[in-house]
Amino acid sequence: MKDLLGRDEAVTVEFALRLFNEQILRTPVIESVSIEDAYGRVSAFDIVSTENLPGFNRSTMDGYAVDSADTFGASDTMPVYLQVKGQVLMGRQPEIRLQRGETCLIPTGGMLPEGSDAIVMFEYTNRIDDNMVEIMKTVSPGENVIMFNEDVGKGEVVIKSGHRLRPQDIGALAGLGILAIPVYRKPVVAIISTGDEVVPADRPVSTGEVRDINSYNLAGMISACCAVPLKRGIIRDDLDKLRAAVKQALNEADMLLITGGSSVGVADYTAKVINELGSPGVLFHGVAMKPGKPVIGGIVDGKPVFGLPGHPAAITVGFETFVEPLLMRLSGEIPNPNVPSRITVKALFGRNLSSGAGREEHVRVYVEKHNDMLWAIPVLGKSGLIRTLVQAEGIVIIPMNKSGLYEGEEVEVRLFR
Amino acid sequence: MKDLLGRDEAVTVEFALRLFNEQILRTPVIESVSIEDAYGRVSAFDIVSTENLPGFNRSTMDGYAVDSADTFGASDTMPVYLQVKGQVLMGRQPEIRLQRGETCLIPTGGMLPEGSDAIVMFEYTNRIDDNMVEIMKTVSPGENVIMFNEDVGKGEVVIKSGHRLRPQDIGALAGLGILAIPVYRKPVVAIISTGDEVVPADRPVSTGEVRDINSYNLAGMISACCAVPLKRGIIRDDLDKLRAAVKQALNEADMLLITGGSSVGVADYTAKVINELGSPGVLFHGVAMKPGKPVIGGIVDGKPVFGLPGHPAAITVGFETFVEPLLMRLSGEIPNPNVPSRITVKALFGRNLSSGAGREEHVRVYVEKHNDMLWAIPVLGKSGLIRTLVQAEGIVIIPMNKSGLYEGEEVEVRLFR
Repeated sequence: MKDLLGRDEAVTVEFALRLFNEQILRTPVIESVSIEDAYGRVSAFDIVSTENLPGFNRSTMDGYAVDSADTFGASDTMPVYLQVKGQVLMGRQPEIRLQRGETCLIPTGGMLPEGSDAIVMFEYTNRIDDNMVEIMKTVSPGENVIMFNEDVGKGEVVIKSGHRLRPQDIGALAGLGILAIPVYRKPVVAIISTGDEVVPADRPVSTGEVRDINSYNLAGMISACCAVPLKRGIIRDDLDKLRAAVKQALNEADMLLITGGSSVGVADYTAKVINELGSPGVLFHGVAMKPGKPVIGGIVDGKPVFGLPGHPAAITVGFETFVEPLLMRLSGEIPNPNVPSRITVKALFGRNLSSGAGREEHVRVYVEKHNDMLWAIPVLGKSGLIRTLVQAEGIVIIPMNKSGLYEGEEVEVRLFR
Repeated sequence: MKDLLGRDEAVTVEFALRLFNEQILRTPVIESVSIEDAYGRVSAFDIVSTENLPGFNRSTMDGYAVDSADTFGASDTMPVYLQVKGQVLMGRQPEIRLQRGETCLIPTGGMLPEGSDAIVMFEYTNRIDDNMVEIMKTVSPGENVIMFNEDVGKGEVVIKSGHRLRPQDIGALAGLGILAIPVYRKPVVAIISTGDEVVPADRPVSTGEVRDINSYNLAGMISACCAVPLKRGIIRDDLDKLRAAVKQALNEADMLLITGGSSVGVADYTAKVINELGSPGVLFHGVAMKPGKPVIGGIVDGKPVFGLPGHPAAITVGFETFVEPLLMRLSGEIPNPNVPSRITVKALFGRNLSSGAGREEHVRVYVEKHNDMLWAIPVLGKSGLIRTLVQAEGIVIIPMNKSGLYEGEEVEVRLFR
């Protein structure tokens, strides 16, 4: 759709997201990583245990191993007396076999000897002499014991496919001796900066030039999403150079972000190149949001390509709105839709602020406490100022159908990470 | 304090935390890292700009550079006419100087020529011929311009000390050409596993033995806190070996976690070694919480040392309750106390559950949606089962003064990460 000036008309954020959701992306590649490097990676298969955990009946307390039937009715006032037959050594298969009326010492983690099915904790016992102990508590079968294969059984799925591995998941895999973990390769996201005025951060600037801010901001956001940033440098405003750089980046990466294309000329180049290099090409050019309106979204042969306007705040908002959900898809993770993926906090909005009707507005805010209430204070200022992002702690979204926010209105702040 | 059986009496979680808060920890070491590696690190000084950003008046739009006074009163129906004097090139100091009544083309990011103080966007202009343009909008001074040093001024503090660097902070530092960043060294946390029954994860297990789960779980949690895990292997239940291992670990690390010390013998060794090696030694032995009651907390010459009971769920709860806040202190980060540091979600508790009075209970739960409501479903099972942690998505805390939770009661779930 074109507007009266012949420009593409802005689509809504919701519509733009739907356009991407309808697209099929490349399937992530599967690789095997060592358990030492598996934290935070996404499992690519259901991982099945080939062992029983534990492989034996295991005490969870320091105490006496007993046949629970022997303790029936035992109490402080009516103890039962059992004969002590030595002790279980840690990490060893016990040589002791208990008969009825017999017991033995066992440490936490020790293997239950044959003839026992429960542990009486020390505090409920009273050692009479070398051979005899008083038991002052009734225990039930399995009490203070982890039974053979009670934790994980052989053949059981321990970790489902598409699960981002947490510390305890790594612990479980270690416990089962699964040391090579099939995971999806982390998505690689190439970044191309454009603009004849942009110079690398490590170069002195002349008047009229600015250092490359955006590729650093983007690289950090990509890392925060557990993906790999691949900086492809700064390309001059030249169609042929841009085409060559995009082509190469798409060979190396799973996604491409081109920044600085808010200038009409560069935006046109970016859209042209996306359309030239593969199908379906540009999905939308311009979104009804602020900041970030001139964003271009497209797909080249299963790989998402974005043209992000060069203002720092537009970069952040464009990334969080469009790039982050796509990175989730490319990661292979199947998240629980019922739990949030980011830290949010409820607060009262700090001032009256009007918002343009018909567009979604992303307001940078910081969070303060006054009179025991949390307030989200807007950081006002042009979206071209990196300072506004540095001062802000998160974003409050004013939806398209609202004309603004009142001071004291409750809002949800999505914190930066 | 000792109980009737001569054991140390459990202190409350709050009291145990206060004991640590009163202790002085070693000051973190400062190092310099490249901007490429600075994401997620904590700044060790106030970082001051040595430049002005931008170093020139910069256009934020494609359009015409004007003296705003020339546009006064301009509108659709009453345009003003300005003479076009060429165009500004990106990244160059313009050679044009505008006189009143003159304008020139300027791209987004271009440097304003002398004699101009605002930009009129293309959409509000109409080019009449090579020399003349119609301006259909009044602009105010500075409109669509980022003025010289408007973003960051020379001498201004860009990043405060104790700030964990986010993507936009890295962007700002890049924009100012600050490429070596003074940060606190990441805390190094040594892990010692104890237990004669524990074998390394890469070794086959005999009957009576189990693989080391806890050091993998702990290493993941340490990494999640932006700290560095240092696995120091498995030490046999032997006082001299433990003492030597602890001594060495304290030389190499800022904190030490000893796992598996829930067996009375090992716990005694652990407490003894902590007291022997430095002051003040053991701060508490036993906390009124479940799981994790037998936790030992101490300080050896400014370095925290913990004895964590060996059950997987106790490891996780002990870490989140005690180790995480200390890692925050050791990191040098000064967090905003008004924003949460973890993802939480409100839900209804899934069943009636009683809790022992006088102790804080940490219940593992997963989150499900039924009838449009979120429910926190407890994962019941012994704290020695790693499976309960793998199935759980987070923790609900039943405070000490509550005797349990009712089905349908609102709770806050703190999600694992």
